[in-house]
Amino acid sequence: MSGNRSAALDYAQKNHARFLEELKALVRIASVSTESQYETQMAAAAAWVADQLRTLGMNDVAVCPTAGHSVVCGEYRCSDPQAPTLLVYGHYDVQPPDPLEQWENPPFEPTVKGDYLFGRGASDMKGQLLAGLKAIESILKTDQLRVNLRFLIEGEEEMGSPNLAAFIAENQHRLQADVALNLDSGILAPDFPSITVSVRGLAYFEIRLYGPASDLHSGTFGGAVHNPAQVLCELIAGMHDAQGRVTLPGFYDRVRPLSEAERAEMARLPLDEAYYLKVTGAPALYGESGYTPAERVGARPTLEVNGLLSGYTGEGSKTVLPAYAMAKISCRLVPDQDPAEVYQQLLDYLNAHAPRTVRWEVVQHAGSPAAMIALDRAELTALSQAMEQVWGKKPLYKREGGSIPVVAQLQQIMGMPTILCGFGLPDDNLHAPNERLHLPTWQRGIETLIHFFYNLTS
Amino acid sequence: MSGNRSAALDYAQKNHARFLEELKALVRIASVSTESQYETQMAAAAAWVADQLRTLGMNDVAVCPTAGHSVVCGEYRCSDPQAPTLLVYGHYDVQPPDPLEQWENPPFEPTVKGDYLFGRGASDMKGQLLAGLKAIESILKTDQLRVNLRFLIEGEEEMGSPNLAAFIAENQHRLQADVALNLDSGILAPDFPSITVSVRGLAYFEIRLYGPASDLHSGTFGGAVHNPAQVLCELIAGMHDAQGRVTLPGFYDRVRPLSEAERAEMARLPLDEAYYLKVTGAPALYGESGYTPAERVGARPTLEVNGLLSGYTGEGSKTVLPAYAMAKISCRLVPDQDPAEVYQQLLDYLNAHAPRTVRWEVVQHAGSPAAMIALDRAELTALSQAMEQVWGKKPLYKREGGSIPVVAQLQQIMGMPTILCGFGLPDDNLHAPNERLHLPTWQRGIETLIHFFYNLTS
Repeated sequence: MSGNRSAALDYAQKNHARFLEELKALVRIASVSTESQYETQMAAAAAWVADQLRTLGMNDVAVCPTAGHSVVCGEYRCSDPQAPTLLVYGHYDVQPPDPLEQWENPPFEPTVKGDYLFGRGASDMKGQLLAGLKAIESILKTDQLRVNLRFLIEGEEEMGSPNLAAFIAENQHRLQADVALNLDSGILAPDFPSITVSVRGLAYFEIRLYGPASDLHSGTFGGAVHNPAQVLCELIAGMHDAQGRVTLPGFYDRVRPLSEAERAEMARLPLDEAYYLKVTGAPALYGESGYTPAERVGARPTLEVNGLLSGYTGEGSKTVLPAYAMAKISCRLVPDQDPAEVYQQLLDYLNAHAPRTVRWEVVQHAGSPAAMIALDRAELTALSQAMEQVWGKKPLYKREGGSIPVVAQLQQIMGMPTILCGFGLPDDNLHAPNERLHLPTWQRGIETLIHFFYNLTS
Repeated sequence: MSGNRSAALDYAQKNHARFLEELKALVRIASVSTESQYETQMAAAAAWVADQLRTLGMNDVAVCPTAGHSVVCGEYRCSDPQAPTLLVYGHYDVQPPDPLEQWENPPFEPTVKGDYLFGRGASDMKGQLLAGLKAIESILKTDQLRVNLRFLIEGEEEMGSPNLAAFIAENQHRLQADVALNLDSGILAPDFPSITVSVRGLAYFEIRLYGPASDLHSGTFGGAVHNPAQVLCELIAGMHDAQGRVTLPGFYDRVRPLSEAERAEMARLPLDEAYYLKVTGAPALYGESGYTPAERVGARPTLEVNGLLSGYTGEGSKTVLPAYAMAKISCRLVPDQDPAEVYQQLLDYLNAHAPRTVRWEVVQHAGSPAAMIALDRAELTALSQAMEQVWGKKPLYKREGGSIPVVAQLQQIMGMPTILCGFGLPDDNLHAPNERLHLPTWQRGIETLIHFFYNLTS
């Protein structure tokens, strides 16, 4: 280990107590983005982050207005003209604290108990954001940072980032980088380092079926008219085959197959059937034949019914033959599926299978492709080595089943890949009462990021 | 024609104008049963009907309280110990008049225009009820009535008769009769006399499916867990085969086949494909192979989806994998299906087809068997002959697709069959603005009922 790297690590250890006090100061700011009563606190949190960046010596720090909550930007230019550039992504907003009565300590009065800091946002993601900033501080105070940095710290992640795509599109000049470092992620367990290497895409649709001109009496007309709710069920039932595969024509054509090496890697994840049964509470598992649950969630595309509505759904009975039936359907996509193509595949399916007894239409709600970091990319290797340097074992590569809008937006708008990095834990109570941060893991996270910055240029 | 019968018919013709004035008086009473603001008018209508019965010379006339609106009872005992006994059924309540702005005349200010009397309840069923009472008056004023009568005139038909079954069960002694004469029916067209000889039964269920313990994120878990909304669609899709037949095991075992004579009779009904397309506005018709639309609605059982609900059904998108899915399903039954057996058939189907990835339950909401009058029954022949005597042509026998609670209740509680008789027309705007009564048909109805009473004992 080079002397300077070791000085930075020493600095991080010696300053742990102060880092924690600064994190507590940030957690005390109730920056709930979804409720207007917290507006002052949102502005205070943005200002706090901007001050941190200025204190670190970042340039051009600015709190940039959007149609919603502000985005904090800034940058660091190192002296080496060959240095890589990273776009550090984070968010300063947090989930609402409800239900308040279930918190053992007030959500915005951060409290240390044993190895944990309790408080709303401690893990998601004020702790993760500060791990990044404190790693940078540790290097800058003891050495030179040989990486260019740009910052994109938004305030609307917990609202679904409604104004972020527009902000990225209009501010590409100040965001340009080789790769984004998204700090809003986690690892599998305190002794189980892992890196999320892909997120699935999303193609969300609403199918609307129209039968008779208005709701009919099911006695007077039942038997002579096709019931749109029945037709909807038949169409949806046909969207999976007996092997649990999606039947939209061409759905799997672009799906990148899993290599044997990737399957072996995924088999090492602690995500077996028993795990999925326990966390979901489902009576039994289900999925595409020939794949493990972790592969089905991480590396295979799906089609889910997110909502169904037709006819009378109140208490008791009403003998209506509905005029209308609606389903919300969404597909999770994997590389290299294209949301626009999946939309066309759904239309093809309906054109082929919808009977002429109904009219139908499809509304598109959202679409984003999957994103996967190239497994041989230098930044990924640098992060993997950093984890091994801290934990003493290689991290597992994990594929995430969900979709992260900013990852897809940076890819789509700027062609920028993302490295997902973060040290949250599955039992941190994200979005729930008694959210907490595991402090030993947090400290390892800071150390991992110090190693990462050094590995990038060594 | 016997001299006395002809005197009764003469009386009915000569008194037409007064009969109409009395009907207008009854229509003026806004007896809307579903809204509490009309409570006084409901009591006034019951009193009006009771006064009519007393004026006719009926005995033991009483306005009998129930948990809801009152039932008017009364009886007539003729001197002939061999005379048959009829239970005359009607209702004095009407539908709400909304939307008021679409009425050309105020709904409770009865107005004659051309051949029609306009007003809420003119056809459904104050006109039909008075046709019965005025036929009785015409005979009693000119001759002797050789039939025993009992009356059951309820005030909650437009609410679904919630208190009628209890009333019938507790008052069997005052309702006992050979057959019920239900005046709440209609004919196909002014020149198309018809008699409804059957109504379908009903078996109404709610199917509830439970998958994961709570709603899941469709990204984090989609692919590894069976989606209850998808399972529900698959189960419902399997409830019909490609011929439009219901697949519940044993569903058709007790269905009484249509005889060739009945099919020929039904083929004469003006209920062809063009008719059903026009009145439903459906893009195309549908139904069980091998049957006409009229047969599918009148003489074949069905299974309809009355409601579907699962997951997120609001605006836009939410990426939820629902924990729960619900369908309301009802079967229309024909003789000799048994609602309890159909419930068991549904359980058998679900036991055979529901996957072990979900838990399920079925709630029963309502059940009543179909009712059909024996086609060789003397009272039916008497009514058919009466129509032929008035119209100069035989009426068609029609099977009604809907269910009439009181018909099933009298059958179930007292074993009493029902003759359905009435002279409403399909374009009377029942339950709609500008409800109307076709006065020439109404007069023929009074004459038909006079003939009917004579035919019963001749």
